[in-house]
Amino acid sequence: MKDVDYMAVAETAMAQIQQGAFLTVKAGDRLNTMTIGWATIGYCWKKPIFMVAVRDSRHTFTIIEDAADFTVSVPSGDMKKEVLFCGTKSGRDMDKFAQCDLKTIPGRKVASPIIDLPGIHFECRIVYKSAMDPARLTPDYEPIYPAKDYHTLYFGEILDCYEI
Amino acid sequence: MKDVDYMAVAETAMAQIQQGAFLTVKAGDRLNTMTIGWATIGYCWKKPIFMVAVRDSRHTFTIIEDAADFTVSVPSGDMKKEVLFCGTKSGRDMDKFAQCDLKTIPGRKVASPIIDLPGIHFECRIVYKSAMDPARLTPDYEPIYPAKDYHTLYFGEILDCYEI
Repeated sequence: MKDVDYMAVAETAMAQIQQGAFLTVKAGDRLNTMTIGWATIGYCWKKPIFMVAVRDSRHTFTIIEDAADFTVSVPSGDMKKEVLFCGTKSGRDMDKFAQCDLKTIPGRKVASPIIDLPGIHFECRIVYKSAMDPARLTPDYEPIYPAKDYHTLYFGEILDCYEI
Repeated sequence: MKDVDYMAVAETAMAQIQQGAFLTVKAGDRLNTMTIGWATIGYCWKKPIFMVAVRDSRHTFTIIEDAADFTVSVPSGDMKKEVLFCGTKSGRDMDKFAQCDLKTIPGRKVASPIIDLPGIHFECRIVYKSAMDPARLTPDYEPIYPAKDYHTLYFGEILDCYEI
């Protein structure tokens, strides 16, 4: 593992996240991973901040709502198959780790593990969250929510950022 | 003006924003600029997104609440004096542009102008906003808000990004 500066890798990470990255969350003995394609990275509340969005219809939502932290594992290699699987199948119905042969590695700073893959890994503790209020969303973004399953925005303080 | 990719300049921009950048907002004939030190940049709702935070005690808050857009002007040169002034004085009491000899340039895509300075400029239309709910904030961040003047988070779709 090689420590990296979170903003130095932001461009590379954001380009890959748009192709699919893994949001992994553990709360108690409940663990799941899901594909994300969106994120924002920056500095807020005097801390490095990573924002992810989870729809309230997601199995991951039921876990992250009880979790203190999350990790984001951004693959540098081709993981199209796993990204597609974890973005379309629900952890309610199966063990995605077993189905995709995804191994985890314990987080260095948080309870949620990372996915054992070559790439950039962010370990974040949840410092703020906000369920989206559709009344505040521009109407032209509404087609993103045909089922009205709006996102909750989770702001994680980046406690660790490294490559493996 | 030279068009640049918003993520390609994100590392440089975030480093400078932490030293102070200008958030400029126009609503009708009301115009103000203020210093920001925080922001997040990324991709959400299938769009490039720039998030800024404005405390509800700010004069800028009264303008941005009625605005459709904002700009962020990130100086590449030394503007410590202007950054300090615009971060500590209120546009309620004076014309900051005149006081700091800051000139504006009309936005290319938005009603809010940019500050005429060498650096990176973001033009953003407000697509979502969320007043912070203190109940959702980690208690150890509470000292940021001794006056309980919490931020509203403004999410801007980046319509233009360029250097001058």
